[in-house]
Amino acid sequence: MADPYVHPPLHAVRDAVARAIAEDLTPLGDLSAALLPEGAMARAQFVARDSGVVAGTLCASEAFRQIDASITVEWCLGDGDAVGQRGVIGTASGPFASILTAERTALNFLGHLSGVATRVAKLVAILEAAGGAQAPKLWDTRKTTPGLRALQKAAVRAGGGRNHRGNLSDWVMLKDNHLMGLGITEGVRRARDRWPGRTIHVECERLAQVLEAAAAGADALLLDNMSPDEVRACVDAVNELGFGRRRPLLEISGGVTDENAHLYARCGADMISSGSLTNSVSVLDIGLDFLE
Amino acid sequence: MADPYVHPPLHAVRDAVARAIAEDLTPLGDLSAALLPEGAMARAQFVARDSGVVAGTLCASEAFRQIDASITVEWCLGDGDAVGQRGVIGTASGPFASILTAERTALNFLGHLSGVATRVAKLVAILEAAGGAQAPKLWDTRKTTPGLRALQKAAVRAGGGRNHRGNLSDWVMLKDNHLMGLGITEGVRRARDRWPGRTIHVECERLAQVLEAAAAGADALLLDNMSPDEVRACVDAVNELGFGRRRPLLEISGGVTDENAHLYARCGADMISSGSLTNSVSVLDIGLDFLE
Amino acid sequence: MADPYVHPPLHAVRDAVARAIAEDLTPLGDLSAALLPEGAMARAQFVARDSGVVAGTLCASEAFRQIDASITVEWCLGDGDAVGQRGVIGTASGPFASILTAERTALNFLGHLSGVATRVAKLVAILEAAGGAQAPKLWDTRKTTPGLRALQKAAVRAGGGRNHRGNLSDWVMLKDNHLMGLGITEGVRRARDRWPGRTIHVECERLAQVLEAAAAGADALLLDNMSPDEVRACVDAVNELGFGRRRPLLEISGGVTDENAHLYARCGADMISSGSLTNSVSVLDIGLDFLE
Amino acid sequence: MADPYVHPPLHAVRDAVARAIAEDLTPLGDLSAALLPEGAMARAQFVARDSGVVAGTLCASEAFRQIDASITVEWCLGDGDAVGQRGVIGTASGPFASILTAERTALNFLGHLSGVATRVAKLVAILEAAGGAQAPKLWDTRKTTPGLRALQKAAVRAGGGRNHRGNLSDWVMLKDNHLMGLGITEGVRRARDRWPGRTIHVECERLAQVLEAAAAGADALLLDNMSPDEVRACVDAVNELGFGRRRPLLEISGGVTDENAHLYARCGADMISSGSLTNSVSVLDIGLDFLE
Amino acid sequence: MADPYVHPPLHAVRDAVARAIAEDLTPLGDLSAALLPEGAMARAQFVARDSGVVAGTLCASEAFRQIDASITVEWCLGDGDAVGQRGVIGTASGPFASILTAERTALNFLGHLSGVATRVAKLVAILEAAGGAQAPKLWDTRKTTPGLRALQKAAVRAGGGRNHRGNLSDWVMLKDNHLMGLGITEGVRRARDRWPGRTIHVECERLAQVLEAAAAGADALLLDNMSPDEVRACVDAVNELGFGRRRPLLEISGGVTDENAHLYARCGADMISSGSLTNSVSVLDIGLDFLE
Amino acid sequence: MADPYVHPPLHAVRDAVARAIAEDLTPLGDLSAALLPEGAMARAQFVARDSGVVAGTLCASEAFRQIDASITVEWCLGDGDAVGQRGVIGTASGPFASILTAERTALNFLGHLSGVATRVAKLVAILEAAGGAQAPKLWDTRKTTPGLRALQKAAVRAGGGRNHRGNLSDWVMLKDNHLMGLGITEGVRRARDRWPGRTIHVECERLAQVLEAAAAGADALLLDNMSPDEVRACVDAVNELGFGRRRPLLEISGGVTDENAHLYARCGADMISSGSLTNSVSVLDIGLDFLE
Repeated sequence: MADPYVHPPLHAVRDAVARAIAEDLTPLGDLSAALLPEGAMARAQFVARDSGVVAGTLCASEAFRQIDASITVEWCLGDGDAVGQRGVIGTASGPFASILTAERTALNFLGHLSGVATRVAKLVAILEAAGGAQAPKLWDTRKTTPGLRALQKAAVRAGGGRNHRGNLSDWVMLKDNHLMGLGITEGVRRARDRWPGRTIHVECERLAQVLEAAAAGADALLLDNMSPDEVRACVDAVNELGFGRRRPLLEISGGVTDENAHLYARCGADMISSGSLTNSVSVLDIGLDFLE
Repeated sequence: MADPYVHPPLHAVRDAVARAIAEDLTPLGDLSAALLPEGAMARAQFVARDSGVVAGTLCASEAFRQIDASITVEWCLGDGDAVGQRGVIGTASGPFASILTAERTALNFLGHLSGVATRVAKLVAILEAAGGAQAPKLWDTRKTTPGLRALQKAAVRAGGGRNHRGNLSDWVMLKDNHLMGLGITEGVRRARDRWPGRTIHVECERLAQVLEAAAAGADALLLDNMSPDEVRACVDAVNELGFGRRRPLLEISGGVTDENAHLYARCGADMISSGSLTNSVSVLDIGLDFLE
Repeated sequence: MADPYVHPPLHAVRDAVARAIAEDLTPLGDLSAALLPEGAMARAQFVARDSGVVAGTLCASEAFRQIDASITVEWCLGDGDAVGQRGVIGTASGPFASILTAERTALNFLGHLSGVATRVAKLVAILEAAGGAQAPKLWDTRKTTPGLRALQKAAVRAGGGRNHRGNLSDWVMLKDNHLMGLGITEGVRRARDRWPGRTIHVECERLAQVLEAAAAGADALLLDNMSPDEVRACVDAVNELGFGRRRPLLEISGGVTDENAHLYARCGADMISSGSLTNSVSVLDIGLDFLE
Repeated sequence: MADPYVHPPLHAVRDAVARAIAEDLTPLGDLSAALLPEGAMARAQFVARDSGVVAGTLCASEAFRQIDASITVEWCLGDGDAVGQRGVIGTASGPFASILTAERTALNFLGHLSGVATRVAKLVAILEAAGGAQAPKLWDTRKTTPGLRALQKAAVRAGGGRNHRGNLSDWVMLKDNHLMGLGITEGVRRARDRWPGRTIHVECERLAQVLEAAAAGADALLLDNMSPDEVRACVDAVNELGFGRRRPLLEISGGVTDENAHLYARCGADMISSGSLTNSVSVLDIGLDFLE
Repeated sequence: MADPYVHPPLHAVRDAVARAIAEDLTPLGDLSAALLPEGAMARAQFVARDSGVVAGTLCASEAFRQIDASITVEWCLGDGDAVGQRGVIGTASGPFASILTAERTALNFLGHLSGVATRVAKLVAILEAAGGAQAPKLWDTRKTTPGLRALQKAAVRAGGGRNHRGNLSDWVMLKDNHLMGLGITEGVRRARDRWPGRTIHVECERLAQVLEAAAAGADALLLDNMSPDEVRACVDAVNELGFGRRRPLLEISGGVTDENAHLYARCGADMISSGSLTNSVSVLDIGLDFLE
Repeated sequence: MADPYVHPPLHAVRDAVARAIAEDLTPLGDLSAALLPEGAMARAQFVARDSGVVAGTLCASEAFRQIDASITVEWCLGDGDAVGQRGVIGTASGPFASILTAERTALNFLGHLSGVATRVAKLVAILEAAGGAQAPKLWDTRKTTPGLRALQKAAVRAGGGRNHRGNLSDWVMLKDNHLMGLGITEGVRRARDRWPGRTIHVECERLAQVLEAAAAGADALLLDNMSPDEVRACVDAVNELGFGRRRPLLEISGGVTDENAHLYARCGADMISSGSLTNSVSVLDIGLDFLE
């Protein structure tokens, strides 16, 4: 049984793989594999062309399984494990033609999700190098690739990041546009009344809003597009309100890059979020090398 | 009716949007929009934060339609159009809460697909600047994001690129692994016999293979990971075979980047393909700005 | 609103059309229509190349609607209407490219289902010519084309036939193999006990079985592969049992063809069933002719 | 546009209705409606046979729409409104046969969901009568009818209740079995580390656990199967910990009935939850009365 | 292989479970199980908190299978078996975290369907106690919970009831509204003509209708909202018509409760139907107890 | 692993079978099998009632698997093998009731697809008898039965035919209507520009069009509704253009029947296509015979 912390739920894996297979094999199947001599068997290794962090092994296994259940896939590395350049991640064995048919679908998942995990791990490392034990944790967003939310969010966890809300249904987030219609204090009050027990998260663009939201009882505050100094000022102001251990979670959002992340790592905030972890990612280049 | 050359087929749009909405609104819908005053109406503009090429307008419209059919979306720019920084792409009007609920889903599609189109357009421009009328065309690959094949391939067309085969079912491609079991001449013969009328495409790693594949009657040759000089040598050798206008299509594949593309632009090949057009793309940053 | 007697339920139409469109347009849509000049409009007529009976107009309309909701389809003939050679069935108007994209899907439904209706109508006519008011009605079977049960059964009704049970779930049918394990009398008793209110239908290969099933209280008797004389003998024997108007329904099954149908038309049976109405049908050739 | 606070998300409505229609009309559609004279039109009113609270109007409208888009449905009462015995809730107008076909599906949704809302409203009224302004709010659970989670949870809101977590993915809940493997303090610590920002909810069976969980920083405490006195003792003990307004939410769970609810209404807890609100509900009897 | 008489068809089980899992685990999976130590194994027993009749074991097994195929589920009791308070129904063994993830989904099915079976069994027992061998059988209706038709109808069988028509497609039922447009005699004639072989069922509100429907050849008569005496009068009147063993089935419908059922049990009718068997049911309380 | 050349892709098999099972078993499953004694086991053979060519074994196996995974199916013949009258194709073993439930669904696929393969094989034999080594190959079309494209196209291959384009997305085909808007030369140019690498196929009604299309660089020419002499004239004219081995593919389309096929077999064309291979096919009659 796969560790549910770093893996997506299986139903999401099955559905995403089924869709990918349908788009690659409709309507005639694999014309090229249909040319191979029948009965040939093969073994092939998943090999990383670059170093990174692995994610998506359940998807890759499922792609082989749906194409041909007689293929065996074994993993030497699992989701969340680091892999070096030329490192072997796993092995697929079975009918030659079936392995070729499933190869690209399996690699598309594995490369994309490992790309997410690798990107996350790199930024986590920068934050931890700069911030040590006080480094904020890294949060993803809802800026995910359509249809891959569950898979990408699991890859973020595999890379050492944390998941912001999963969707519009799991916690309340009052952004600038919501607040236009409501105001912070009234917005938090309504949220608390209608959705008791849920995280109430307020987007703040300036210190006055931070103070209002904290006073109103928000559970988390998004500090929107602030400089490290502005963040620090907000953190200090909230600390002075005396919440102690129940201080609202403070999130830095907007404009954090690999280049400036170290500046944000020691501001005292709890979280840094970035849409680019999921919507602007390069694949980790992984190939499938056949063994003689 | 949308231009089918730059738009994906509607059934793919409907399905992809339905999945994205389900992943964002299961099970309780949008908690935050449920706090807004009932009956409020709004207008908001899609505004590009960076310059680029637009793609994905059908998906964005469909996202609003599936959330609330009373929302009206009008586009000032369409798929394939260039947009400048701060340029307005379109406008959504209707119930305030519904627009907020649909916003992120619509933007996730629009940003991702415009990101693909923008990336493609940039590389096409490099090739055309260097190669003029002889510049090879730009081809995508099957290295797409799972579940988004149809949408990404349409975005490639919107960006001025061309689509390589859509999937394993539309033409025959004999890669190194297929050839291990078959050999080029026999492989092309079998393909021609079993799949008459279809493009037969052969991956070649060196000149001898190029010559064998051309002699065997392949329709297209993939020149794998060759330097510009190696490409030129292959092109010349094939030209000497005297096919005239029916010369097999010559594709440069592997290792082409924004930095070295100009070197490949004048080699005489027909196509340059790159997986990064679809699997390693940054979103075009597009926001939805509410109007007073 | 469509007459529900000759039309299939709409949900079945929507689903079948969506599948047909997906198999025809995955992943890139219609390459050829994407070459046409944008904005061209057209009108085209559905014209029968042979005479027959129309069925499937809902499916054809739905195919156009799913491809492009701006296409208008109007029918001069409806399901169940006779059409002569060169007869016009309906007209589609709208964007030229969209009509071309939907054309084949619409015609595949219309031709196939009209083929079923035409085949049914022909055999009904033979039976009525020979049997007059006593002619048995024509029944379809569960020998339908997979995935098209609802559509084919509606086409049978459009052709003047009647629907045998729709599936394994709507009435009890005890065939030879069921009876091996049960015996007729015990089978009917169990069926009556477990499924009160439902039709109980028993397959009989000889007169003794007919008498046993009738005595056991079966609602319908299938006379399997009998000659007209054997059928008549069974009918007479059942009539002598004195059921009056509540006589079990007598069905002739097996071996009825256009050539021998008239011989069975005056045997006194209620129904003649044939799998060939749905599983061995030629399309009614219908084309889409564009108007200048 | 429907108020998203009392209505389920539309995608859930569409899917649930499509399934209900498929199960009621596969494979042959409505045999009985197919007997009616073509072209007859009708109007019919949804009338409550008992008093209660309305929910499910979107589902009922959608059922008519999917059966026949030419039917018009208008509601005089909406989700969350009280209806008296013989009260009219809405009117459907259109083709007679189509209204009959959709009737039962529409009523099955409307009756079931109004039954949930009515049940919730009754218990809320008991709590408010006994507890006044201090009355705990009423929470549903994940003990919902499979496939109807989104619809039932919306009906709970329509009835004046609140939604506990929507599913396993929206907040962390450590029940006795999770705690067996972890312990409260370590469990809360891990949850906070792995899922920052999310509600952490701990099931407690006795005061010592309540104190440990509160000290560990849990956001909500489930007081499992406690008497009113035990609840009051826990509330007092937590109050003494001095959280002020950020006191963890205290939930009474288990054994609350219409009969004893008033005893729990003044214990100082925030919430009372009950699985019976969604898994043991009688329909609100609603009929569709045709008008002459 | 499961007994098809008391179990629902497997495709309905698979689909219903897949939907329930998607609604409980979208998008992030089980946050809480993701906190448990990896590799822990467990065994747990399904234990009834009340006595009743079991139904839904296929659904429960399928829920575990879809969550984690390495879980083993063994049943000591099967659908249709009585279970006492604290009786063990079955055992699940496998990874601890997976069992916890699947628990609620499995119990929601098992509790709901066993609730239906238990409710049915109770009313059947009342009827049999009062009516002995002449007791009418108990029929469900189409008043089922949307999406669960197949599962609830199987649970009715498991409880000792019988299934009325499964949907609008399996037999003809002429209710008051259909008859408004048609009249009984003409309605039955049309039904017999259009749908030969199928049960024709007529709703009757008074004796004259009963006699007309019987004379017209209806197969079943619904006696709508009649007192026991009125039922008896109708039964006697139909008996006098001399159908013998082929008497139309007589169904008592409307207003039968646990309290008055014994009064209807000796009226000579064949069936008693009640929508409350499926639309107003309390769960049978079943828990999953982990073993040390 | 099944030979991908003669088998459809598995995802298409799974989906088509799931739909067929749902239409045959919704909502109550198999009423009749539910009467059989529990626990009975059986073996049964698939036996051809006529001679022909087998196709569809994957579908038949899948039907049994989805109904009851404990059934074993073994094939003595595979897709593409000839079977004689009374020839045994395979054997199913397992629970008696399950085999009966799956029987019709399995046979509907097997009979239909073997019917396609048999029809194809017959016409191929006629062509080969008349044309010897120069006989054109037989092509299917897009005139397939909706929803069965992948399965029918595989059956065509099993019968010795070849697959024309799979759908609108795999190659460009310029028919008369496309050409109305474009003209041949411009149409081919646009196609080559927008869809490089893809087959460009032009429908020609007369010699002048043939010459224009060949000159324009089309890859394949459809000779529409021509007599054998007209075909020969076109072939000669194209041969004179001196393409050598890269001559465009010449396809005879329209009006070819079993009766006149031999006249077309020696015209020098490459392909003969016929819609009737897939849209006007009789089943191969195959039964399932139970063994004592």
